[in-house]
Amino acid sequence: MTRIQGLDPGSRVTGYGCVRATGEAGMMPAGVGPRTPDRAPLVDRLNELHRDLSALLDRLRPEIVAVESLFAHYKHPQTAIVMGHARGVVLLAAHASGAKLIELEPATVKKATTGSGRASKAQMQSAVQHAFGLPEPPEPADVADALAIALCAADRRKATAAVAESEGRAGPPAS
Amino acid sequence: MTRIQGLDPGSRVTGYGCVRATGEAGMMPAGVGPRTPDRAPLVDRLNELHRDLSALLDRLRPEIVAVESLFAHYKHPQTAIVMGHARGVVLLAAHASGAKLIELEPATVKKATTGSGRASKAQMQSAVQHAFGLPEPPEPADVADALAIALCAADRRKATAAVAESEGRAGPPAS
Repeated sequence: MTRIQGLDPGSRVTGYGCVRATGEAGMMPAGVGPRTPDRAPLVDRLNELHRDLSALLDRLRPEIVAVESLFAHYKHPQTAIVMGHARGVVLLAAHASGAKLIELEPATVKKATTGSGRASKAQMQSAVQHAFGLPEPPEPADVADALAIALCAADRRKATAAVAESEGRAGPPAS
Repeated sequence: MTRIQGLDPGSRVTGYGCVRATGEAGMMPAGVGPRTPDRAPLVDRLNELHRDLSALLDRLRPEIVAVESLFAHYKHPQTAIVMGHARGVVLLAAHASGAKLIELEPATVKKATTGSGRASKAQMQSAVQHAFGLPEPPEPADVADALAIALCAADRRKATAAVAESEGRAGPPAS
């Protein structure tokens, strides 16, 4: 049973959400970090993020880590650069865990989750709530985004497996 | 004898340069990393940067790590975000080394090195060549920048020490 860890690095917090890539998605621990206040030095926040994320990956041992790919357009350059710091730390921890890294376009994740590549945060939270049968929408939105990324990676994996199976049937018999 | 490690994280390479904060600046090993080609996945480049930089800091054991502070204006947002990834990894390695982190404004470093806060890369390389009595300007420019950052941090430290000494003389005797 493949475990897929979705991660959504942000300038303030990074969302975590792990799913099992079985027929029915089963949600595993999800949350956000770091807990250090925003006003703390960036280096301390990055250190906490790396420590906690490394511990999480060590505990859950996901086979796949899924993150959104870098996108070109940002409203606030400074915020995007700070997000870059967190994403660098996230990629480093993912690499150290030995998991396979999958990068997905943000619009692809939104479309797979809600049907629209331009869904709002609230629409994403609502769609994730329904997908996992949760009593409330995940809070903050970063957790919903991380779960949506993991779910999208799981769906892709199923689609890839189905295509491979179909191609296997259509192809010549193995020698 | 305090060792100050200057680091200049960039989207392509990160410059390293260590100086001794004595009366006369003595240059220690300087260079750039990662050596992995630009076209390699960012995660692999970040991993090499973290591994090599951690090994360097472990070998040189600088008391101070100096980097440029985040600046608000960038010509190319995407490049700035990738630089953010490298800077996040650099801050993480610096924190793990136990060194004190000093952040300096880019214009402050340029002004301290060349007399102008808007110096070109070539002017910075030339000024660093003369400051350290090198036969050639440091190449690539990232190495010169890292050495300039370390030198600026060393000068600041001397200035702070001189002020503290002067204030000590002017102040009341210690009880």
